[in-house]
Amino acid sequence: MTGAVVTVGDELVQGLILDTNSPYLEEKLLELGFQPRLSASVMDRVEEICQILGLATMKARVTLVSGGLGPTEDDVTREAISRFCHAPLELHEGAWQWIQERLAIKGLTPTPQHQRQAYFPQGATLFPNRMGSAWGFAVNHQERWILALPGVPRELRAMMEGEVIPFLRERFPGITPMTLRVLKSFGLKESQVNALLKDLLQEHPGMGLMVRDYGEVHLRLCGPPGEVEPLAGEVRKRLGHHFFGEREDSLEGLVGSLLKDRDLTLATAESCTGGMLAHTITNVPGSSDYFLGGFVTYTDQMKHRLLGVPMETLERHTAVSRETAQAMVEGLVKRTGAGVGISVTGIAGPTGGSPETPVGLVYLGYRFPWGTEVLEHRFQASRIGVKTLAVKTALDHVRRRLSRGE
Amino acid sequence: MTGAVVTVGDELVQGLILDTNSPYLEEKLLELGFQPRLSASVMDRVEEICQILGLATMKARVTLVSGGLGPTEDDVTREAISRFCHAPLELHEGAWQWIQERLAIKGLTPTPQHQRQAYFPQGATLFPNRMGSAWGFAVNHQERWILALPGVPRELRAMMEGEVIPFLRERFPGITPMTLRVLKSFGLKESQVNALLKDLLQEHPGMGLMVRDYGEVHLRLCGPPGEVEPLAGEVRKRLGHHFFGEREDSLEGLVGSLLKDRDLTLATAESCTGGMLAHTITNVPGSSDYFLGGFVTYTDQMKHRLLGVPMETLERHTAVSRETAQAMVEGLVKRTGAGVGISVTGIAGPTGGSPETPVGLVYLGYRFPWGTEVLEHRFQASRIGVKTLAVKTALDHVRRRLSRGE
Repeated sequence: MTGAVVTVGDELVQGLILDTNSPYLEEKLLELGFQPRLSASVMDRVEEICQILGLATMKARVTLVSGGLGPTEDDVTREAISRFCHAPLELHEGAWQWIQERLAIKGLTPTPQHQRQAYFPQGATLFPNRMGSAWGFAVNHQERWILALPGVPRELRAMMEGEVIPFLRERFPGITPMTLRVLKSFGLKESQVNALLKDLLQEHPGMGLMVRDYGEVHLRLCGPPGEVEPLAGEVRKRLGHHFFGEREDSLEGLVGSLLKDRDLTLATAESCTGGMLAHTITNVPGSSDYFLGGFVTYTDQMKHRLLGVPMETLERHTAVSRETAQAMVEGLVKRTGAGVGISVTGIAGPTGGSPETPVGLVYLGYRFPWGTEVLEHRFQASRIGVKTLAVKTALDHVRRRLSRGE
Repeated sequence: MTGAVVTVGDELVQGLILDTNSPYLEEKLLELGFQPRLSASVMDRVEEICQILGLATMKARVTLVSGGLGPTEDDVTREAISRFCHAPLELHEGAWQWIQERLAIKGLTPTPQHQRQAYFPQGATLFPNRMGSAWGFAVNHQERWILALPGVPRELRAMMEGEVIPFLRERFPGITPMTLRVLKSFGLKESQVNALLKDLLQEHPGMGLMVRDYGEVHLRLCGPPGEVEPLAGEVRKRLGHHFFGEREDSLEGLVGSLLKDRDLTLATAESCTGGMLAHTITNVPGSSDYFLGGFVTYTDQMKHRLLGVPMETLERHTAVSRETAQAMVEGLVKRTGAGVGISVTGIAGPTGGSPETPVGLVYLGYRFPWGTEVLEHRFQASRIGVKTLAVKTALDHVRRRLSRGE
């Protein structure tokens, strides 16, 4: 069983926006048991939409079309599907009533433009929109389903979950829904994960490496539950302590849960990451339960004045040194009383490097209730890349130390 | 003149990666003077590539194909274009030589697999790859150009700039290259910018709103230089002080330049933004020239201990108040000696709000050499959204105050 995704909008073809609807819809097709074969963006023109529908329906039993359902003259997805399926547009009284009520709440008077949104191809199944005025619909044409959905991401997602997935499950009772799992790893490069799982990747076409969060390598497993569950077990085993979580998990979220479980507080002292570590930690809702605060000490004087790093240490070993990282984390814990402290000092670049302290050299200092440690890292990346890798390495280390003392 | 973009790869059709090559290539086509009409992703299969090439070449004089040029059996873009254009693949000795030299440097022995990358359709113009082994090529088929380019973004971009753009300029001497400008604004919603520029947007089809950086609204103007330059002037005038810069500009970069020009230093004291303000400031290379450091004080006690906010202020007015923001910024400047100080305190949510201090309420405190001010804001957004809007609002305010005392 195959599927296709078509997104409609001039702005998509002209590079004005990054199309995030397509990957979302492709993943949903996979979960439903349809193999996506084509993904295309076309302009808001009836002819262009009809042409791509010709190609898509040649390949796919189910084609999801997103966008072009608004009230303006530019929104022609309804007309295009009507023409493609030879199903004339008809006014749907229920939808029109609903749109008028919606406009009344906003104090607006309905116009013929608004009424455009209440016309649907003859025989279509309608999908009400709870968040906007663009209703979706499904049409069957020569054994192929074409489904039109709104382009606004949150409306699209709500309609998929609430209407479209149950609709397709019902229409295709013979298809086994697939299990989709995402296993996340940190600390290995893409090529290393590839080498580690080479045989599994070849055997299981439903398994693939996802490139999303910089520095992390995610594996997506998609297939019948009976295949995916043992495969996930094997992947986790091979990834070892590099495996850290599944779809909704993040390093910062896991660190937060571990701290809460152990009733520990956290504080940070950052130089080259410039606040990114604290920012990442505080992206977690409820992080105020364990995060006390942090310092960003971007100069020697700030390291000395705010964290009490001795000037002698800074002069003798420089700011980017094991000794400074240690003094930073010790000063941090003394000033905040935190149970766990993390310090970062290094060279994010692109300038400021030297043969002794090259760009990418970073020292991470940790203070746990059972002691202090400082680790040296050499990251090869851009400025933002070095910051990101330093932050994730620090969080991953705390995660591992707190979870099993690995 | 029209163009099309085709990206090739199973991972693109299955939602495993976000396709950033397509928007890039679409923008380059526009700059070259080709109107993009179709953008599609297909699987690594000869038949699928040929089918989409059929549709693309029907519409477009120039089709850019990215991906599928690697050495493995999965990489079939060469075969597909060869079949589509009826141009048999031939070994190119120069390319093969070059690939072997590259392998020798890495200590690898050439295999027949590697040789696949030295085969090109008969009559093709080749584009050497300076960063990898996948050379690109161009084939003319029935008055249409099909260009194959690598899928690795940095290789693709280098080849576009270095080889493809000059190649197409030479082949299409009659087309006027377009001027492409991006004007960035902050402080207005998309709908407000739309209303402000409605007539211009209707008159100029080459003008569009870009949705990229959250909270900012960018306008892209594309057209002949004689049209774009006066249009850009008019857009800037209408946007007023909400206009802040062009393509390469960022709020944090502009603030950095203004500080350097005025020989001022900067420090931050953050509560609800949790380090994001310092992180954003330190994303700018060379920010250590003016950024001293900052505090992240996530608890009342930290605000008191690290910044000297009186406990009485915190108890009487709570942490999310004008008074606390002011005490934070004053304590910050006292402790760091910075010329400019920014403080942030508010409720990022999703929990922690109350009728008096709802989620999204944020106080921003500023300390300039000429005085202190505190402003109240109410942001309606997710947790990350509130953090981002607070950070950008603070940077934009400093930018405006330092630039013209607006």
